[in-house]
Amino acid sequence: MFFGGDYNPEQWPEEVWDADVELMREAGVTAVTVGVFAWSHLEPSEGEYDFAWLDRVLDRLHDGGVKVVLATPTASPPPWFTLAHPEALPVNADGVRLTHGSRDTYCVSAPAYRFAARRIAGELGRRYAHHPALAMWHVHNEYGTDCRCDLTAAAFREWLRERHGSLDALNEAWTTAFWSQRYSDWAQIMPPRATQYLPNPAQVLDFRRFLSDELLSAYVEQRDLLRGVNPSIPITTNFVQGGWVSVDHARWAEVVDVVAVDHYPDSSDVSAEEQTAFAGDLARSWGRGSWLLMETAPNLIYTRGRMHAKEPGRLTRQSLSYVARGSDGAMYFQWRQPRGGAEVFHSALVPHAGPDSPVFREAVDLGARLGALSSQLKPAGRTAEVAVTWDAPSWWALQGAGLPSAGIDYLAAVQQAHRALFRAGIPTDFIFPTRELDLTGYRIIVVPHLYLVSDEVAAALRDFVASGGHLVVGPLSGIADPFARVGPGGYPAAFRQILGVRVTEWHPQDPGVPVHLDDGSTAFGWAERVELTGAQALARYTEGTLAGEPAVTRNGNAWYVSAGLDDTGWERLLGTIVAEADVSPVLEGLPPRVEAVRRGELLFLFNHSESEASVKLPTAAVDAVNGGSFPAEITIRSGEALVARLETPAGTPTATSASPE
Amino acid sequence: MFFGGDYNPEQWPEEVWDADVELMREAGVTAVTVGVFAWSHLEPSEGEYDFAWLDRVLDRLHDGGVKVVLATPTASPPPWFTLAHPEALPVNADGVRLTHGSRDTYCVSAPAYRFAARRIAGELGRRYAHHPALAMWHVHNEYGTDCRCDLTAAAFREWLRERHGSLDALNEAWTTAFWSQRYSDWAQIMPPRATQYLPNPAQVLDFRRFLSDELLSAYVEQRDLLRGVNPSIPITTNFVQGGWVSVDHARWAEVVDVVAVDHYPDSSDVSAEEQTAFAGDLARSWGRGSWLLMETAPNLIYTRGRMHAKEPGRLTRQSLSYVARGSDGAMYFQWRQPRGGAEVFHSALVPHAGPDSPVFREAVDLGARLGALSSQLKPAGRTAEVAVTWDAPSWWALQGAGLPSAGIDYLAAVQQAHRALFRAGIPTDFIFPTRELDLTGYRIIVVPHLYLVSDEVAAALRDFVASGGHLVVGPLSGIADPFARVGPGGYPAAFRQILGVRVTEWHPQDPGVPVHLDDGSTAFGWAERVELTGAQALARYTEGTLAGEPAVTRNGNAWYVSAGLDDTGWERLLGTIVAEADVSPVLEGLPPRVEAVRRGELLFLFNHSESEASVKLPTAAVDAVNGGSFPAEITIRSGEALVARLETPAGTPTATSASPE
Amino acid sequence: MFFGGDYNPEQWPEEVWDADVELMREAGVTAVTVGVFAWSHLEPSEGEYDFAWLDRVLDRLHDGGVKVVLATPTASPPPWFTLAHPEALPVNADGVRLTHGSRDTYCVSAPAYRFAARRIAGELGRRYAHHPALAMWHVHNEYGTDCRCDLTAAAFREWLRERHGSLDALNEAWTTAFWSQRYSDWAQIMPPRATQYLPNPAQVLDFRRFLSDELLSAYVEQRDLLRGVNPSIPITTNFVQGGWVSVDHARWAEVVDVVAVDHYPDSSDVSAEEQTAFAGDLARSWGRGSWLLMETAPNLIYTRGRMHAKEPGRLTRQSLSYVARGSDGAMYFQWRQPRGGAEVFHSALVPHAGPDSPVFREAVDLGARLGALSSQLKPAGRTAEVAVTWDAPSWWALQGAGLPSAGIDYLAAVQQAHRALFRAGIPTDFIFPTRELDLTGYRIIVVPHLYLVSDEVAAALRDFVASGGHLVVGPLSGIADPFARVGPGGYPAAFRQILGVRVTEWHPQDPGVPVHLDDGSTAFGWAERVELTGAQALARYTEGTLAGEPAVTRNGNAWYVSAGLDDTGWERLLGTIVAEADVSPVLEGLPPRVEAVRRGELLFLFNHSESEASVKLPTAAVDAVNGGSFPAEITIRSGEALVARLETPAGTPTATSASPE
Repeated sequence: MFFGGDYNPEQWPEEVWDADVELMREAGVTAVTVGVFAWSHLEPSEGEYDFAWLDRVLDRLHDGGVKVVLATPTASPPPWFTLAHPEALPVNADGVRLTHGSRDTYCVSAPAYRFAARRIAGELGRRYAHHPALAMWHVHNEYGTDCRCDLTAAAFREWLRERHGSLDALNEAWTTAFWSQRYSDWAQIMPPRATQYLPNPAQVLDFRRFLSDELLSAYVEQRDLLRGVNPSIPITTNFVQGGWVSVDHARWAEVVDVVAVDHYPDSSDVSAEEQTAFAGDLARSWGRGSWLLMETAPNLIYTRGRMHAKEPGRLTRQSLSYVARGSDGAMYFQWRQPRGGAEVFHSALVPHAGPDSPVFREAVDLGARLGALSSQLKPAGRTAEVAVTWDAPSWWALQGAGLPSAGIDYLAAVQQAHRALFRAGIPTDFIFPTRELDLTGYRIIVVPHLYLVSDEVAAALRDFVASGGHLVVGPLSGIADPFARVGPGGYPAAFRQILGVRVTEWHPQDPGVPVHLDDGSTAFGWAERVELTGAQALARYTEGTLAGEPAVTRNGNAWYVSAGLDDTGWERLLGTIVAEADVSPVLEGLPPRVEAVRRGELLFLFNHSESEASVKLPTAAVDAVNGGSFPAEITIRSGEALVARLETPAGTPTATSASPE
Repeated sequence: MFFGGDYNPEQWPEEVWDADVELMREAGVTAVTVGVFAWSHLEPSEGEYDFAWLDRVLDRLHDGGVKVVLATPTASPPPWFTLAHPEALPVNADGVRLTHGSRDTYCVSAPAYRFAARRIAGELGRRYAHHPALAMWHVHNEYGTDCRCDLTAAAFREWLRERHGSLDALNEAWTTAFWSQRYSDWAQIMPPRATQYLPNPAQVLDFRRFLSDELLSAYVEQRDLLRGVNPSIPITTNFVQGGWVSVDHARWAEVVDVVAVDHYPDSSDVSAEEQTAFAGDLARSWGRGSWLLMETAPNLIYTRGRMHAKEPGRLTRQSLSYVARGSDGAMYFQWRQPRGGAEVFHSALVPHAGPDSPVFREAVDLGARLGALSSQLKPAGRTAEVAVTWDAPSWWALQGAGLPSAGIDYLAAVQQAHRALFRAGIPTDFIFPTRELDLTGYRIIVVPHLYLVSDEVAAALRDFVASGGHLVVGPLSGIADPFARVGPGGYPAAFRQILGVRVTEWHPQDPGVPVHLDDGSTAFGWAERVELTGAQALARYTEGTLAGEPAVTRNGNAWYVSAGLDDTGWERLLGTIVAEADVSPVLEGLPPRVEAVRRGELLFLFNHSESEASVKLPTAAVDAVNGGSFPAEITIRSGEALVARLETPAGTPTATSASPE
Repeated sequence: MFFGGDYNPEQWPEEVWDADVELMREAGVTAVTVGVFAWSHLEPSEGEYDFAWLDRVLDRLHDGGVKVVLATPTASPPPWFTLAHPEALPVNADGVRLTHGSRDTYCVSAPAYRFAARRIAGELGRRYAHHPALAMWHVHNEYGTDCRCDLTAAAFREWLRERHGSLDALNEAWTTAFWSQRYSDWAQIMPPRATQYLPNPAQVLDFRRFLSDELLSAYVEQRDLLRGVNPSIPITTNFVQGGWVSVDHARWAEVVDVVAVDHYPDSSDVSAEEQTAFAGDLARSWGRGSWLLMETAPNLIYTRGRMHAKEPGRLTRQSLSYVARGSDGAMYFQWRQPRGGAEVFHSALVPHAGPDSPVFREAVDLGARLGALSSQLKPAGRTAEVAVTWDAPSWWALQGAGLPSAGIDYLAAVQQAHRALFRAGIPTDFIFPTRELDLTGYRIIVVPHLYLVSDEVAAALRDFVASGGHLVVGPLSGIADPFARVGPGGYPAAFRQILGVRVTEWHPQDPGVPVHLDDGSTAFGWAERVELTGAQALARYTEGTLAGEPAVTRNGNAWYVSAGLDDTGWERLLGTIVAEADVSPVLEGLPPRVEAVRRGELLFLFNHSESEASVKLPTAAVDAVNGGSFPAEITIRSGEALVARLETPAGTPTATSASPE
């Protein structure tokens, strides 16, 4: 059980370090992440090292019983790097070369950067790989930078050569016949840079794939170095979840030893809890049941335009919600709020006000709870019966220009599908078309905005339906192949046959203007002209030129939703399908805004509502935190979280499983 | 009669070509535009050509009875061009050099670009100028790029030398005494580039004039080459209508053999029909009665933020509306929707869904209608009695910085004046101060936002009034000379005497806040302090510091509108003047949103409303599409278009003429 | 008494000059500012001069009895400068080098610019320092440009060396331990340039301090040159007040002979009067009682997006309001509206319409009034008993990124505090932490958003309270030291002890959502969790997680306002404190929107309201403008301004003083 956070002792005089360890013990901290941004302290000038201070930090932590997640500091090259290797600084699409003064100022394709990164990682590996405090390696930080320089261009061309084999194949894949873009020499290919008008979407898409792979190769270089020194230490890097992600985490998850995730909800209302559930389910699915929350904000939520101070209990509820969804702990950014720097007001366990503060007091309480749970936690495993597709390339493709509507929002569509299941209490996984699709065990698969579909994925979903699975396809799915080439003959080419429909026209709608269906549901932003070629209409449009035309259809077990249904519509539709597929929620009959999550024999209960709630437990249960029996019906105060250990014979360990009946 | 669209066979395997020709025949397609973006297929590497595929395309089209508008592909240099001639790529005002990856990446002033463009155009000319399928040359595509590089600077200086003669004259014309900008050497003059604060408006204005002329010289170079090979083939380039236009089409129209226009309405409601009428009247006026719709979207309207699928019948109505206003056909972008590329979702006659689709079915029907009309169409000629001024330099000047209000919108002001006449059913021309003004035959001239006025234009309008014409001047007209120098003594210096008013102060208003006049009309955004120096007040301001001051005035036949009247106000005012000038609509007593347009003896009737409409025909008439007589009063279904051939002795052919009474 | 404005004869033919002088005499103009943007006319090519025209201008003005404020034209280098010294042009953070075409295109750290500026200033000094028309030197114009080039970088490093002494000290001051920014060589330090993510706030802050000092050194260079030629001529430069100011005027004010201020209100409603009062009080405080309004717009207000024509009387009211607050006159930009150029529509005393215009007529009237007042005006001195802190570095720091709320607005907070006092009729000074703080004579000090506080300033305020002064501290004050390092232990570290409170959490609020306090007041945008450590709560929060917690507190004479109180709240709170501190308004019982200001024995009265108002004079008084006695109770028409000379024995001259009782 990891409980702790990013610890930056280099920002403080040594007398603070003793106080830190003392406070960590008070809070039950088990591990801290050290060194993430310490490059300029570890290598003050090129090739000269100062490890003495880090030795003292690690020893002191070890003496205090705190484990160390040791970072390689390669996300933030020091100022000397800028001067020594100007060609290794990143260049944006306008040709502006960025410089130090913030963080992440490097080009990942620059040999000088790679060399410097390997060198400092190697030094750290040699010095600390066998330190008794070392629990894990944390390579770099939140990989995700972008560069369009000439060194990047060269690396991009190499990657393209490997992917496409020949220029002819690339010209075909990128549809360069459009707008006279046919390449006659590899040297002509560039990263997307400032150009006159709309860029080639296939070029943009391949560049994003390349960047993900290029960053991954930088990770692998360091991983191999560190593994070589001491193969017993797990190695990871922290994935960042959010709206600007530039790597394909589903594929990265196959390469790290532990899926470590940074997650900062950006909403301060109830949807923050939905974001937390989404993040937890996504992380668990990346990690095939196992992961670690590496960063979240202890006492703040960063909403658009301001910070929101978390209400009492919210830190506890959100932290336990990640744990319930499989995280092997809860780590925070950061331990101690800094005195200065760009993030001087970023959240911390020990804030500017010091330990005599609401957040530190809640952290102490939470540390005790996690300590109590620690021995009872089993790996979450994979037990959900419903899965939603998540596909980074489809997201990237739908972030492009030239699409039929500026309102298309991949992330929102996936979150909406997940939210409908979350509100119904249905345990949900994500599945990832960019890695091997294992659909066994699922009864329902929901496919929102899966814009790019390969033949293999289409076949897998066809087989799923053929073998009795329920498939629910939303709009903008199955439109194009992996190179964004639209399939001919009517949308959605990849799924037309399974769904028994053929779409001849898209009818994007103005934002905020409702589109009504004849089953009483309402849609926004999107409608289509659907022809039935086997399916039956479950709901039809009622207005405008589409009046009377099918909106929601069913073809055996394959549903098609052509309209931009609102939350209520999705909840109703998925409710029907869940019932038909005989999928059960974790607990039946929960009060509103009370959440239940199973992890093994532990049942986590969260009352996110403003009032007290009563929950009937499915079996006899003990209080996993405080000990003692729970009554058959327990009362949960507003804002509180409880953990019950159910006393049924413990079958297979289950992750966010449905409650047994 | 041209009916067809942009055809890009290079995007498709040859087996599709046969299907294309088959479908073209089915739809009655008479001509297609080929090769617009084919440079990288025609010249795969510098100086090496591949015309074989184009030979096959043209032969196949010829065999199918489809004529070819053959484009020179110079709007989109291939990737090899970037590498070979980096100095010939465009540079923006911030010094960012654009690169290939989209289209239009060239600097029109770069000798290397000019050379490459002439070379490929010459090759095409030599090979195809006598091809039997060739109906027209289509040079380049939508001229309108911008560059601020050093080559551009050199060309700009040459242009300025010619225009101004001496540095003293330029310093005077540009008012360089302001802010210490006096030039002491031609070498000091640059295109407008990133600078500290507001730029010199005369410099910006002359640069826009220069760009228009510079692009035109590139057109003329290709035109002369092509004309040299076969003088019998008409040559054109497609003008683009819209909000970002950077050339002075009125002057270009004098240089092309056929005025070809691309028009994409950007509104999906009723105003799309008003935009279509505006575009058609403008194009006809450019072409002195004759023009060709070269591009429009068959099944989509591109509104801000989304695409709007055209309702059934809208393609037909809009297409016939262009034809009614003088277009010699209707061409579309594009024939077949592409598989990929930046505009993969751009509109097409054969959409992704294929020919079994609403748009293709409507195209087949429309092709038949146009075929039936073909032999009955006469040139539209020039017959309107009302004209509105249109002046690209005034538009450019009012797009600048430092103006009294950010709400000033040249295009909106001209559209508003046209819209008031359109709604009253009054045939309307445009007249162009940047080319010879022929005012004979007009009874009313409306002058909206004609900010820049030369002495010659002021004199022409003075003579027009003196000889009994009705002149209606709106605000922000006659303010400055062609170099944006404001005339002294009170606004509007150019028209003060004709109008009998003198404006001492402008009173820009906040958007959305009404300004009331004492005749019940309402204005927005603009008011003025007007002194009467001969005119009488027709309406006065009722509020604020202008209460009781004149707002709308009349001095004999010269009206002045100082306030930003709303649509109702303009319609009422112009209604009064139309009545006084004895100008008649095409048909009296039309139901709301029913449009009537005359072209020769053909009367086009459009029912844009939601309900059936009855129209009394002015004479006996036959159905020009289906044959047979029309009853004296005909019924038009909602969304339908009819064409009646009036059986009166056919007098002079008339364009959008008033109906005879 | 200065009455006149910027005069640019180089924009006009000489025949206009005679008319100008004639009109100046008509309007009672006493002085004009000449030559501000005349560099390209004075030095048409590098090192060649043409002073003949300026000789004639100065002689003509002298003959007409008009004094000259002669400018050095160094704000706008001519086009030849760009070509000769490209390295001396400014470069923005993205590396874009700006060029001529506007004004202010120079890098103040470039030796070539400094040399050229000294040379032209020296030439002017030698030629005109003893001209009989010369009243004042006006160096440059509105110093405030920004550059990030390599020459700037070098100068920045020199400045940093001097400020910080050592790299270690700089690393500590800038908290470079955050994000691996530790510098190991001075050469690594750069101005803030384009970087990957949030910049280092201390680096940004020091760069803004550097720019202010660097620009000041350029001023001092010219000042010393001019002073050397004729030490009897006062020298100044015009400070610009507004939202984008980049220099620390409080420090600059110590260096100029006369504090000259440009002020353009940007609101057209009643708040323009509040802005005028704010500007006047700030300028008077900069100038320790004495200053000169160097520029304002005679007949326009520049609001966001449009120009607003001033209502009749507004020019007079606003001008007299500056004079009442200590200005030794009223100067305008500009004398004659230009024919062309970037600011062709900028305001003027002689507008495009000419002297037969409302603005010129009002100017003539105003000139007569000022002439009558001229001999009666005494220096304003310093007499207010209330002061508000104004601190440029705190403003800069709160313009940075990474703050807890995008709604933080330093300027708005200071204006709100001043507005509350203005509305209560309380004479108010500003005090400046960046120069010596003299708090003697003040009874109340208000501290809004004083984010950065040095130990010295904290001590001065502590002593102020200790000696009986009333201190009112708003949120976001006393948070950080001058290098933006947050003080530990609870906010606000600098004032915690004086205030008897300790803030453990900030609770930024969404804009527009009210936060209610239990004393009935309302706040917006900001709340805090406050612990009482000595203070008592005057008002408490009523909602959310802060319900029942202190919001406004008092600890003896030290008040703390943790919430973003609205205007009403601030007015009520300050009203209470004003009463307790026994501070009186200028006049008791004034009608709404009637303003009274004392300057010596003159009492200025302004009726900004829409209706007539009655004011009881405190003593017998004569009409200082027209002569004759005023009745004891006088009537002021809507929009009018009156000046009464009070016939009390004239004690010490007082500035905006409270009325004696």
